[in-house]
Amino acid sequence: MTDIIIIGSGPAGLTAAIYAQRAGLQALVIEKQPMSGGQIVNTADVDNYPGMPGIGGFELGMSFHDHAQKLGAAFVTEEVRAIESVDKSEKVVVTAKERYSCRAIVLAMGASYRMLGVPGERELRGMGVSYCATCDGAFFRGKTVAVIGGGDVALGDALFLARGCEKVYLIHRRDTFRGAGSLQEKVFATPNIEIIYDSVAESIVGDGMVQMLQIINKKTMKKSDIFVQGVFVAVGMEPNTQLVRALVDCDAGGYVCADETCKTSIPGIYAAGDLRTKQLRQVVTAAADGANAIASAEMYLQEK
Amino acid sequence: MTDIIIIGSGPAGLTAAIYAQRAGLQALVIEKQPMSGGQIVNTADVDNYPGMPGIGGFELGMSFHDHAQKLGAAFVTEEVRAIESVDKSEKVVVTAKERYSCRAIVLAMGASYRMLGVPGERELRGMGVSYCATCDGAFFRGKTVAVIGGGDVALGDALFLARGCEKVYLIHRRDTFRGAGSLQEKVFATPNIEIIYDSVAESIVGDGMVQMLQIINKKTMKKSDIFVQGVFVAVGMEPNTQLVRALVDCDAGGYVCADETCKTSIPGIYAAGDLRTKQLRQVVTAAADGANAIASAEMYLQEK
Repeated sequence: MTDIIIIGSGPAGLTAAIYAQRAGLQALVIEKQPMSGGQIVNTADVDNYPGMPGIGGFELGMSFHDHAQKLGAAFVTEEVRAIESVDKSEKVVVTAKERYSCRAIVLAMGASYRMLGVPGERELRGMGVSYCATCDGAFFRGKTVAVIGGGDVALGDALFLARGCEKVYLIHRRDTFRGAGSLQEKVFATPNIEIIYDSVAESIVGDGMVQMLQIINKKTMKKSDIFVQGVFVAVGMEPNTQLVRALVDCDAGGYVCADETCKTSIPGIYAAGDLRTKQLRQVVTAAADGANAIASAEMYLQEK
Repeated sequence: MTDIIIIGSGPAGLTAAIYAQRAGLQALVIEKQPMSGGQIVNTADVDNYPGMPGIGGFELGMSFHDHAQKLGAAFVTEEVRAIESVDKSEKVVVTAKERYSCRAIVLAMGASYRMLGVPGERELRGMGVSYCATCDGAFFRGKTVAVIGGGDVALGDALFLARGCEKVYLIHRRDTFRGAGSLQEKVFATPNIEIIYDSVAESIVGDGMVQMLQIINKKTMKKSDIFVQGVFVAVGMEPNTQLVRALVDCDAGGYVCADETCKTSIPGIYAAGDLRTKQLRQVVTAAADGANAIASAEMYLQEK
């Protein structure tokens, strides 16, 4: 029986492994992908992990992985199928190959950005196509970009980007926004934001880097080309919590309900990183969750 | 007028500066010490900041500072005397030299561990004298150490250290512990923890590294020498919040009341890092606070 099983090996899971090992608790990290690091693995540059300006996402993921491995964390590449027992004495995590026993579990499967599903999007991801203005906006200073979406995140992204970019197109499929009224008023009052209503992306075009966004007006069926260097997709996020939605309390969006202590509705099971309810999803906030999850698990394991 | 003033330049303050600059908000960091980095500056090795195993504390502090400076954050070395206006339109931070205006403030002055105040303690800090078992315990694997204190933290530290150390002396000034009963029972049941009651430290002795702890029994006045390689002082922490205790809501211990969004009782003032109410005080959790404080400040600045 291992002390702690960590499901997922992005920044949250790997930091949990680091803290567990340093606390003298044996950690087993179960990751379905061949590579650790989570979403950042596919990010060209990460410029907001403090102390490592401009590091590549792949390199950052590897540095977390190597840190955990150096401290003795164990890793297996398997997909978790079920969590069976959640008793205080023994919790069981089941993969296609094995049944693993442990005393506490850290859920760190992350979340995925919803994609538009248009030609060019996947190919140009990290080459001008971004899903996170907070993460990547600073790379587009002085440039022209498009934001796609109509909720709070899209409006907030447009305002954020307008502070540094020359021009921001805000493209929304409907003729009114879902986002907060106060954000809408700010958007309307920002001279370098141009709103394009009733329109959706048809394709993203570029040779190595984004050069153009092709959109279509759904009412007039008129097509237009917009010349942009960046496309920020803000059409929502999907937490990777299918495995546990029937097990622990989740909110309407599928995020695991947990505060910064990472405690879920089941004692001994912790939710760390992008899959939990929280304000800000970043590498550094995911990493902090990994540390907090282990601090909570230590207290749990010290109880009778 | 600058956008955001950050008081303090440990990991929380410097991460706030990084996130502010990347969000297109101008940050001014006011630090009273000549050197940035906060408490870690005096830490020999930091082995739990994810991605940077075994880095020196001074080096880690500098890497945070350089990151913020590279992104354009401004720094002044001054001591803040007062926060005067806290209006939405203008907040004023006063030092001995200047009055600085801004739109939002991040409090990041940190906290200090209470010291024993005995000979050898200051000289051997980082050379066997530690104030944080979570931070430094892993360096003492297989060694003999002493923990000084009687509260939850002291008991938790003793249990934590007992998992990796050969022997742990737990030295307490009284004949009963203040800490939780469940922790006490675990301590009593741990064979490699030896409790020494009614005793206080008189001095810490060592030539470059801790070699011995001299204690005195307060009832019998008998003195003893204990041979240890590490001394963990767990007699409490003092948040550096004297400046703001009359301004924002603080708890009984003087910590600023704020959850992970870092919002204090005054809109537009945020508390990031060790000085706020929280479960775990570590470099990575302080850094996460810096990011969250700026996310909250951005929303505040977008409101009318």
